[in-house]
Amino acid sequence: MIDRRFFYRSGPFSLGYVAERVSGQLSHPAAADAMAHDIAAPECAGRSDLSIFSDTRYQDACARSSALAVVTTHQLAELLPDEQNILFVSQPRLASAQISQLFYPHAPLEAHIHASAKIDPTAMIGAGSQIDGGAVIGGNVTVGARCHIGAGAVLDHGVTIGDDCCIGATTTISHAKIGSRVRIKTGVSIGGEGFGFVPSPTGLLRMSQLGCVVIEDDVEIGGNCAVDRGSLGDTVIGSGTKIDNLVQVAHNVHIGKNCVIAGQAGVAGSTTIGDEVMIGGQVAVGDHLTIGSRAKIAGKSGVMRDIAAGETVGGYPAVPIRLWHRQTVALLQLLNRKPKAER
Amino acid sequence: MIDRRFFYRSGPFSLGYVAERVSGQLSHPAAADAMAHDIAAPECAGRSDLSIFSDTRYQDACARSSALAVVTTHQLAELLPDEQNILFVSQPRLASAQISQLFYPHAPLEAHIHASAKIDPTAMIGAGSQIDGGAVIGGNVTVGARCHIGAGAVLDHGVTIGDDCCIGATTTISHAKIGSRVRIKTGVSIGGEGFGFVPSPTGLLRMSQLGCVVIEDDVEIGGNCAVDRGSLGDTVIGSGTKIDNLVQVAHNVHIGKNCVIAGQAGVAGSTTIGDEVMIGGQVAVGDHLTIGSRAKIAGKSGVMRDIAAGETVGGYPAVPIRLWHRQTVALLQLLNRKPKAER
Amino acid sequence: MIDRRFFYRSGPFSLGYVAERVSGQLSHPAAADAMAHDIAAPECAGRSDLSIFSDTRYQDACARSSALAVVTTHQLAELLPDEQNILFVSQPRLASAQISQLFYPHAPLEAHIHASAKIDPTAMIGAGSQIDGGAVIGGNVTVGARCHIGAGAVLDHGVTIGDDCCIGATTTISHAKIGSRVRIKTGVSIGGEGFGFVPSPTGLLRMSQLGCVVIEDDVEIGGNCAVDRGSLGDTVIGSGTKIDNLVQVAHNVHIGKNCVIAGQAGVAGSTTIGDEVMIGGQVAVGDHLTIGSRAKIAGKSGVMRDIAAGETVGGYPAVPIRLWHRQTVALLQLLNRKPKAER
Repeated sequence: MIDRRFFYRSGPFSLGYVAERVSGQLSHPAAADAMAHDIAAPECAGRSDLSIFSDTRYQDACARSSALAVVTTHQLAELLPDEQNILFVSQPRLASAQISQLFYPHAPLEAHIHASAKIDPTAMIGAGSQIDGGAVIGGNVTVGARCHIGAGAVLDHGVTIGDDCCIGATTTISHAKIGSRVRIKTGVSIGGEGFGFVPSPTGLLRMSQLGCVVIEDDVEIGGNCAVDRGSLGDTVIGSGTKIDNLVQVAHNVHIGKNCVIAGQAGVAGSTTIGDEVMIGGQVAVGDHLTIGSRAKIAGKSGVMRDIAAGETVGGYPAVPIRLWHRQTVALLQLLNRKPKAER
Repeated sequence: MIDRRFFYRSGPFSLGYVAERVSGQLSHPAAADAMAHDIAAPECAGRSDLSIFSDTRYQDACARSSALAVVTTHQLAELLPDEQNILFVSQPRLASAQISQLFYPHAPLEAHIHASAKIDPTAMIGAGSQIDGGAVIGGNVTVGARCHIGAGAVLDHGVTIGDDCCIGATTTISHAKIGSRVRIKTGVSIGGEGFGFVPSPTGLLRMSQLGCVVIEDDVEIGGNCAVDRGSLGDTVIGSGTKIDNLVQVAHNVHIGKNCVIAGQAGVAGSTTIGDEVMIGGQVAVGDHLTIGSRAKIAGKSGVMRDIAAGETVGGYPAVPIRLWHRQTVALLQLLNRKPKAER
Repeated sequence: MIDRRFFYRSGPFSLGYVAERVSGQLSHPAAADAMAHDIAAPECAGRSDLSIFSDTRYQDACARSSALAVVTTHQLAELLPDEQNILFVSQPRLASAQISQLFYPHAPLEAHIHASAKIDPTAMIGAGSQIDGGAVIGGNVTVGARCHIGAGAVLDHGVTIGDDCCIGATTTISHAKIGSRVRIKTGVSIGGEGFGFVPSPTGLLRMSQLGCVVIEDDVEIGGNCAVDRGSLGDTVIGSGTKIDNLVQVAHNVHIGKNCVIAGQAGVAGSTTIGDEVMIGGQVAVGDHLTIGSRAKIAGKSGVMRDIAAGETVGGYPAVPIRLWHRQTVALLQLLNRKPKAER
């Protein structure tokens, strides 16, 4: 199933070791020394593979599976034959993520700088980092330990990057301070001039953009995103926040911690977003707004006012989500109430 | 008209040869040996140029044109003087595409690898392929015959590409199997990790993305698109499908054959799209949906439910297109019915 | 405040010189020889810094500021103590832009071509231009004087670029004629084939795209935008127009002068946009439309018809802006008028 051309597999690991890593218990403790070599869907799993059972739709496949062990909850395990080896966990999806990362970690870095990378002599590259072909690293750049800088990536003058970061191929970064364990995918533009102009007798005059981009620890940023630097203060993306592909983050935006922002969403200038906010795909959030922590914004909404903490909104303009759904229904009913002649 | 700095012109070709290529007939068969050197708008065409007449708006220009021959239907030809040389075709737009490609084919490849390209010794490059400056090709990559890999493009470990493909400058591709005659424009990100996370006590934990991207024959992908690889299965783009610029295709999406997806549209994770589906610009299609074959989705719609085969929808949330138009009208009428005082 | 790692500071300048540059007057002409070294927010400003006062919210901070001089209007200066040194201007925001550019100009170019840049021997590079590492410049390209071509940027065969332009890292340009003082950010795709196909018995056949992209003087284009070349005529972006990140400009679009187009907006094929048009973020403008000069389009609108000069529209489909606001209100009232049982 998993194409070994593209993925690096680790292991094997004993069932006991896997159980420990996911804080689980084995139905048959005697099996703790059996070795698991891979993960697989239940219907494909062989006698040395682990399978996840997290949804009753897959009950039959799991019941018939030849897997070395099935990872599931006590409750779901009731649906399986007694002889099936179970690794009991409280949250199968979480366990699935943990086990996948165990068997398929990121490929180990090759701690070297490709001969075709162009590193300014004043740049500092941490121990164990891998710099791929054609990457360009400017003066006074600092790259931490165990980072991977992809092919053709460009780190402009003065950029700092923490430890264990991955910067995708052809991504360009300027005017930025980046934490540790940050993963930025390919084709991303970070640190460009924010979009600010002032009318003048000779046309639109650029407002200087003299701030930075600050990306905190454990952030992920998707492919082909654009994150502009601040005009005087900084543009900030808080720790643990995950951003999908093709997202726009304008100048002076502050995004809190552990937010999730789906593809093609955009946040306009100087807006502040709290912690654990969830923003759907293609959402537009207007400028100079405040979005409270744990707010949720439905896909494709257009947010034109502040959103209170914990509120869920949808629509264009965005309103509380129930109101939006009622609007949708009311509009359909409006058509039905019209006399036939008008239709 | 056509700037020869940028385009490679082929020919000349005899009228007879052109007629054969477009399955057309000449009004004056004696002219079959006359040589056509170029294509031009009717009002600019000289005595060795061909012009297309596909719209009655251009009747006057075509009637007065000095073109060697006018390519048009029998019906439209009735509007032209008898002495005008006609190349009769059933579909002038199709003939226009065929004739344009005949006179202006893609520039012939220079079958060489630029000295500054970085090719891993284990990569295999097919005969006649051109690899431009700064391209980076990783281990075990296979590139077919007569491909063009643009400047600074990055093909990561294990990627396979068929024959006669064009990969644009600075495009990055990983975890992908690509067919023949595929054209991918510049700045595209293909094969990145899909956007999947699971909550954990220490924040959002990444779900491993262990699938691939499969791009079938004759697909085109526009500039700065992002196509993520699958989580376990693959993300698939079916043969003949054409995708415009800045489009997002999320993990595990399956797109059928001969679909047309306009600029800035986005398809969320695990959605399945049939064959010959047409998706307008800035459309959002939600996750885990099924869009039937030959469905049409109006520009900027937000699709939140399955769409049946052949259905045409529009709006946000998207509804059958006539209903959407009626909603629009009803909303305007609602305003007019309100007492003046309320306005 | 301003991180000197990332920004090049010029100066110091005498107050008299600054006043002359912004066409302002000093409240205390005797201070004309005092030297200003930097700009700073009023609460942070030291005795050699200038501060801007453009909004009464900052009255207290400005009144207590240690700044060498406060730049403001005669009217706002009434709110400050008499002893405060004032540089009177009519438009503080304009003065702010002018003073910022004075103290923080773009870093001076290093007039050299990096050894790793790949320049075709037939390309012509103007005096004083800087070409960064890994840039690829094709045959018969012309780059004017004092240009900055970023790392990994790709200028394809025949492209012409005027004087004093900045082309961002990894941006790719083909089939384009670019004026002077044009600034294109990173990751932009310019000159790709427009999205045009015609059905044929063997699938969708590409319409040849034989036009160019013409970008006039003083244009700015944001990160990761895509601008396609014309099919026969050209795609044109008029002088002074400013385009934000991730914007799509399709083939044969004509954009006038001094327009402002915000992030993630898209303009479909063959649409003509007048001068000084303002287009909000995530707006979609349909194909073959005409948008009159000085029209304004609210963020996230979907424009499906022509817009008259000077008109302001919003919504999806876009209607005159007041009508859109009334629709929004009417829809909410509709819910309130429904009998409770229905809610």
